[in-house]
Amino acid sequence: MTIRYPNGKIYKPQVESIAKKDTGQKKNDISFSNRGKTLEDELNETNNFYLNRQIAVIHKKPVPVQIVNVEYPKRSAAVIREAYFRTPSTTDYNGVWNGYYIDFEAKETESKTSFPLKNVHAHQIKHMEDVSNQKGISFTIVRFSKLERYFVLPFTVLLEAWNNMERGGAKSIPLKVFESSTYEISPGYNPRIDYLSIIEKMITNKEC
Amino acid sequence: MTIRYPNGKIYKPQVESIAKKDTGQKKNDISFSNRGKTLEDELNETNNFYLNRQIAVIHKKPVPVQIVNVEYPKRSAAVIREAYFRTPSTTDYNGVWNGYYIDFEAKETESKTSFPLKNVHAHQIKHMEDVSNQKGISFTIVRFSKLERYFVLPFTVLLEAWNNMERGGAKSIPLKVFESSTYEISPGYNPRIDYLSIIEKMITNKEC
Repeated sequence: MTIRYPNGKIYKPQVESIAKKDTGQKKNDISFSNRGKTLEDELNETNNFYLNRQIAVIHKKPVPVQIVNVEYPKRSAAVIREAYFRTPSTTDYNGVWNGYYIDFEAKETESKTSFPLKNVHAHQIKHMEDVSNQKGISFTIVRFSKLERYFVLPFTVLLEAWNNMERGGAKSIPLKVFESSTYEISPGYNPRIDYLSIIEKMITNKEC
Repeated sequence: MTIRYPNGKIYKPQVESIAKKDTGQKKNDISFSNRGKTLEDELNETNNFYLNRQIAVIHKKPVPVQIVNVEYPKRSAAVIREAYFRTPSTTDYNGVWNGYYIDFEAKETESKTSFPLKNVHAHQIKHMEDVSNQKGISFTIVRFSKLERYFVLPFTVLLEAWNNMERGGAKSIPLKVFESSTYEISPGYNPRIDYLSIIEKMITNKEC
């Protein structure tokens, strides 16, 4: 059965996180040094580190689902028997660090040369713009998985590329632009992806 | 089958949002002026108002579920066939307003005389404390449903009552304490529960 929105548009589920799990084994083979972890794993570890050291309170939001049917078996946990993935209305991560509102999305690409903008959704751009207007700090963490390179992509740089695409320009952001106009994160041991040290730099330089 | 954590503790699902739906009809009969809406409905309306007027970007977080089994039928949406409710690790609402990190929980009580602290979980107190330490603004919106009265309960007041309970004191916060030491919200038409006007006052008075 095709699920439709009230306006007749066909519902397309967000299966990203499930898909990631399915390909987990494959990813294990690609790289030794990140030990097969997804970017999500690495960021969860980093955020736990921040939380335990009282550096920041930043969490990944749960995957939004529309629950249709729940069973309540006797003497055991309620089981959801029918539910559907919903389109998230925001980015995946947010929280607070030293009085700053932090809000970001995490994206991985297999490309070695550019970050395809099809990874980003229009509603996410809208959300990031709203956050920036409220003086929140908004960015995207991009992992070039094959290269094992990580970047903090400030919203201003993303928006420029997005608007350019809307005017008929390039549909991706070249690695060279990342090298010249964004901030590279050197992955470490603990925290794995220390993005807050980059944000601190950006604030000092008044670049966010 | 009983679901257990690795430490052997029995898993108790959070079925709050489902329970609310189940009793929706009953609530319709209690009050005419809030038209049977739950506090969650009222806050979602309020947050939409704030978002559309570019006043603030504040969202309810999705209910966290552990997905175990998903079906991918041909030509239709993926269906979650087995999933379980997880305990949320944070409060339900967060976002940004004019550079401030806003983080709160919403609670309803049927009591006419006091707010039972069993409505609050230890991990939420911990989270609110962490948020306050990071200079975020943390509070609870409490609705006395039978009285149709709404209050912003600052974290400091909640924490005092909580610590008092831990030392063997009262297990609830009397309505009188709400009247003397918290901020009452007069429900309106649009926005319904204008809690940000209260937060603005609290900031001006340096009370948060």
